[in-house]
Amino acid sequence: MLGRDYADQDCGIARALERVGERWTLLIIRDALFRRSTRFSEFQRTLGIASNVLSSRLDSLVAGGLFELKDEPEGRRYLPTPRAWDLVPLLMAATDWGDRWERPGPITYVEGTSGRPVALRIVDAETGDAVAPETVAVRLREGVTGHGG
Amino acid sequence: MLGRDYADQDCGIARALERVGERWTLLIIRDALFRRSTRFSEFQRTLGIASNVLSSRLDSLVAGGLFELKDEPEGRRYLPTPRAWDLVPLLMAATDWGDRWERPGPITYVEGTSGRPVALRIVDAETGDAVAPETVAVRLREGVTGHGG
Repeated sequence: MLGRDYADQDCGIARALERVGERWTLLIIRDALFRRSTRFSEFQRTLGIASNVLSSRLDSLVAGGLFELKDEPEGRRYLPTPRAWDLVPLLMAATDWGDRWERPGPITYVEGTSGRPVALRIVDAETGDAVAPETVAVRLREGVTGHGG
Repeated sequence: MLGRDYADQDCGIARALERVGERWTLLIIRDALFRRSTRFSEFQRTLGIASNVLSSRLDSLVAGGLFELKDEPEGRRYLPTPRAWDLVPLLMAATDWGDRWERPGPITYVEGTSGRPVALRIVDAETGDAVAPETVAVRLREGVTGHGG
């Protein structure tokens, strides 16, 4: 049975959103990963976000293990962890969707060393062949009796 | 220059979040796509969400072109459009991340007809070779002078 609370939704989507779904959070992560922003002042300058909101979001990201906090003589730095880097597919998916259905944005994704364009694809897990989104379905893992999606 | 408002962030990520980033919205889309929920009562039953919130989210999804509203003798139905189906990569990315970094959820993704497991991959756009998330960088499109991400 599914509960009445958002956090009770027994589903990876719900848990990911609990962690990074708050307003501004993904944009802060975007700047950490791709602009290499590490300081409060850098996030504030590029995002133009209120100090109290930014402060609260950075605290959550540290508490959630997405940023590591380094206290250095010249001030605090926030460094993205592997947990944050693993959000790259989510960021790419959001960019692709926004570019396609809202309007094209200014950025494209590349492999950092070679500069070659990269893309996000749904593929057959075994053969690697492309699979169309409209044909994707979900299945319960073996041994699962609930029906969270 | 980037503006001070969230909606001013000149970036596909920001625009995607403006459209589907509100609490519950992606879970409603998940149920529409994968549980084939089409009626208010179905969304309410599986999500356990307050009527006024559900009503407001469904209205936004219709206004944003993600759901098509059908008034039928037996009641209203909300049918996902191609704009909604194109969120499958975003949903898969969120599931993957939640499964990996929070705890494994109950569902896996398959190709609907064959039942074969599917996966979301970052690949070289030309060769299709896998690319690690940590090596992905962003580049401005040609002709773009701003620096939105």
